[in-house]
Amino acid sequence: MATRVYVAGVGLTRVGRLYDKGLLDLAAEAAWRAIDDAGGLVPDAVVIGNMLSSVLQRQDSLGAYIANGIGLRGRPAFKVEAACGSGGAAVYTGYSLVRSGLYGSVLVIGVEKMTDFPTAVVTEALAQAADAEYELFYGATFVGLNALLMRYYMEKYGVGRDEMSEWPVLMHRNAMLNPYAQIRREITRDDVARSQVIADPIRMLDSSPVGDGAAAVLLVSEEAARGLPEKPGVYIAGAGLATDTVELSNREALDRIPAAAAAAETALRMAGVEARQLDVVELHDAFTINAVLLLEELGLAPRGEAARLLAEGRFHPGDRPTVNPSGGLKARGHPVGATGVYQVAEVAMQLRGDFPGVRVEGAERGLALNMGGDGSTVAVHVLLRS
Amino acid sequence: MATRVYVAGVGLTRVGRLYDKGLLDLAAEAAWRAIDDAGGLVPDAVVIGNMLSSVLQRQDSLGAYIANGIGLRGRPAFKVEAACGSGGAAVYTGYSLVRSGLYGSVLVIGVEKMTDFPTAVVTEALAQAADAEYELFYGATFVGLNALLMRYYMEKYGVGRDEMSEWPVLMHRNAMLNPYAQIRREITRDDVARSQVIADPIRMLDSSPVGDGAAAVLLVSEEAARGLPEKPGVYIAGAGLATDTVELSNREALDRIPAAAAAAETALRMAGVEARQLDVVELHDAFTINAVLLLEELGLAPRGEAARLLAEGRFHPGDRPTVNPSGGLKARGHPVGATGVYQVAEVAMQLRGDFPGVRVEGAERGLALNMGGDGSTVAVHVLLRS
Repeated sequence: MATRVYVAGVGLTRVGRLYDKGLLDLAAEAAWRAIDDAGGLVPDAVVIGNMLSSVLQRQDSLGAYIANGIGLRGRPAFKVEAACGSGGAAVYTGYSLVRSGLYGSVLVIGVEKMTDFPTAVVTEALAQAADAEYELFYGATFVGLNALLMRYYMEKYGVGRDEMSEWPVLMHRNAMLNPYAQIRREITRDDVARSQVIADPIRMLDSSPVGDGAAAVLLVSEEAARGLPEKPGVYIAGAGLATDTVELSNREALDRIPAAAAAAETALRMAGVEARQLDVVELHDAFTINAVLLLEELGLAPRGEAARLLAEGRFHPGDRPTVNPSGGLKARGHPVGATGVYQVAEVAMQLRGDFPGVRVEGAERGLALNMGGDGSTVAVHVLLRS
Repeated sequence: MATRVYVAGVGLTRVGRLYDKGLLDLAAEAAWRAIDDAGGLVPDAVVIGNMLSSVLQRQDSLGAYIANGIGLRGRPAFKVEAACGSGGAAVYTGYSLVRSGLYGSVLVIGVEKMTDFPTAVVTEALAQAADAEYELFYGATFVGLNALLMRYYMEKYGVGRDEMSEWPVLMHRNAMLNPYAQIRREITRDDVARSQVIADPIRMLDSSPVGDGAAAVLLVSEEAARGLPEKPGVYIAGAGLATDTVELSNREALDRIPAAAAAAETALRMAGVEARQLDVVELHDAFTINAVLLLEELGLAPRGEAARLLAEGRFHPGDRPTVNPSGGLKARGHPVGATGVYQVAEVAMQLRGDFPGVRVEGAERGLALNMGGDGSTVAVHVLLRS
């Protein structure tokens, strides 16, 4: 039986177009909030989750850059990249570093600074999550590829625009109470259906916004946890990672995300939990279609049924599991390399009972699912109350 | 006592301007050689070390991209980045993943494809190892920053051009027998002194060449090792990682690399080995000055003495430790994100007694030191014969 890896502290910045904050400001804010939250424990090592800094900020060595730049001089540090799944892969790496006994405490920081750049530049950078030779070379964008998936799903299962629209409506409503959310504004299904077409059938309100943000989780070993003023209330009980081809053309089916099923199966099995026992889930809804497919891949809805179930009130606050009480990527926001760390922090706060938004009362079992590309990398963490 | 992590297989491509090979070709060649070398063991997971693909190939999700692209479909995979130290950080991550018990076997692949691009583009991309705001914005290049270090060292310790030139001469000679080396051509100290000035006092022959290459090491747990046709002859006995500020302006001294001292101290202590007991060392000589400073930082030469000792024949084949019998970054080559994996593979082969170049007979204790930037990240692995 492996040592437990506890979540001793979490720290978030608000997600938004934070023009007055740079990459280091964001990372520092989240990191020191997590350190404060862990009773001041200064971590032994740092792992950074980030997708875009090589292209947008033209800055590599991001581990050293951030660790030393935010006041953790000399600490072992490096960056992990798995496109939009970078944050989840960074948490996975931090979990491994603690579990291996190499460190008593590891601070995982997900950070992304996306504004300050023209939309075309950001869109081109984000497209690097797709295959450069097989997809981008032919003019595809990342939203364009997701549009193919959404159209395929709606045609295959006979799902209409109105049912698909429930997801963004729910996300906007959930985010209303979340002080860290980028968008806090209620919308209707009609608003979604009438919003601008981005890549047919994906509309503006199906899409997560571009935003800056940072999230941090301070992971500690059983032994390090004993030295804290208060025993952490939450631990990572299971972790799973899986991949698939980056290019969609070599996938077995366009309505399946096998890496999500595999990563979730690993994490749930390790934790001894079944999907139907989950109280809270934070999953990767960069676009409406991602949420719908992931709910089905997790076994929480039959194939082709997720959108309908959502429209009937399943997965809403009060139901179990409550899905994306944070407001998800759609409304909490999607600072890409940070998103996976936000999710783990949010699930940890739900289990601790101190998430400052829609709360899942008495939650004991939570799952965070972060995805790179359209399921080319999926990282899943299952958290339990200790 | 932690489980031992064995090096069950290694695989290298020749380093060079390999215009007929892409990123995937290189990764596949190294990966499958390592798998063959490990008796056909197909790994549970993959870690990629790479610096430049986000900028040069415009390809992210490199873990998934490579794992799935080379025939390891679905395997857990992600990329680790620490500039020129990406390979070492990737080995460190793979070591952690095995040591944690998460996987029985992890294939670490370092890969870099640098040719196919104009020199100016590569130079600008490599400069991302420096600080974008504090250094590059003012027009510094990475070689320019190293020129400052070299000039400072030569002035402070009164070391002349001729003594400094012994390093590249030795590296070119060592590489003569290495079939994987990019440059196999003997040079003299005069050749070095007369070669083109790149950034005074750094000359062409002080600089590692631009090249493509991939290296892979297959790391396995004690349990997985028992399932192999042959017990691996080498294990990673110690691993250390440390960082420092990316920008040189905030360093405590320009003739010190504290991250190298710290990472080496950790790795050696973990292995129960002292630096003077080492038989073979592969260290990071992107420029002559790096090798000189690192020899001193490892405690193998007194401050200001490394170049003189080299000129007197210390660290040459036959001496202990023999340093960079591969030919080092200078002559084996420096496909940046792959270099740290080359080093670990080369040290493993030296201990196994099957390195196909300058061989350190009877070597039992080896060390690989890989550096990102000018010591902003340093990863050190100590390998022992099992």
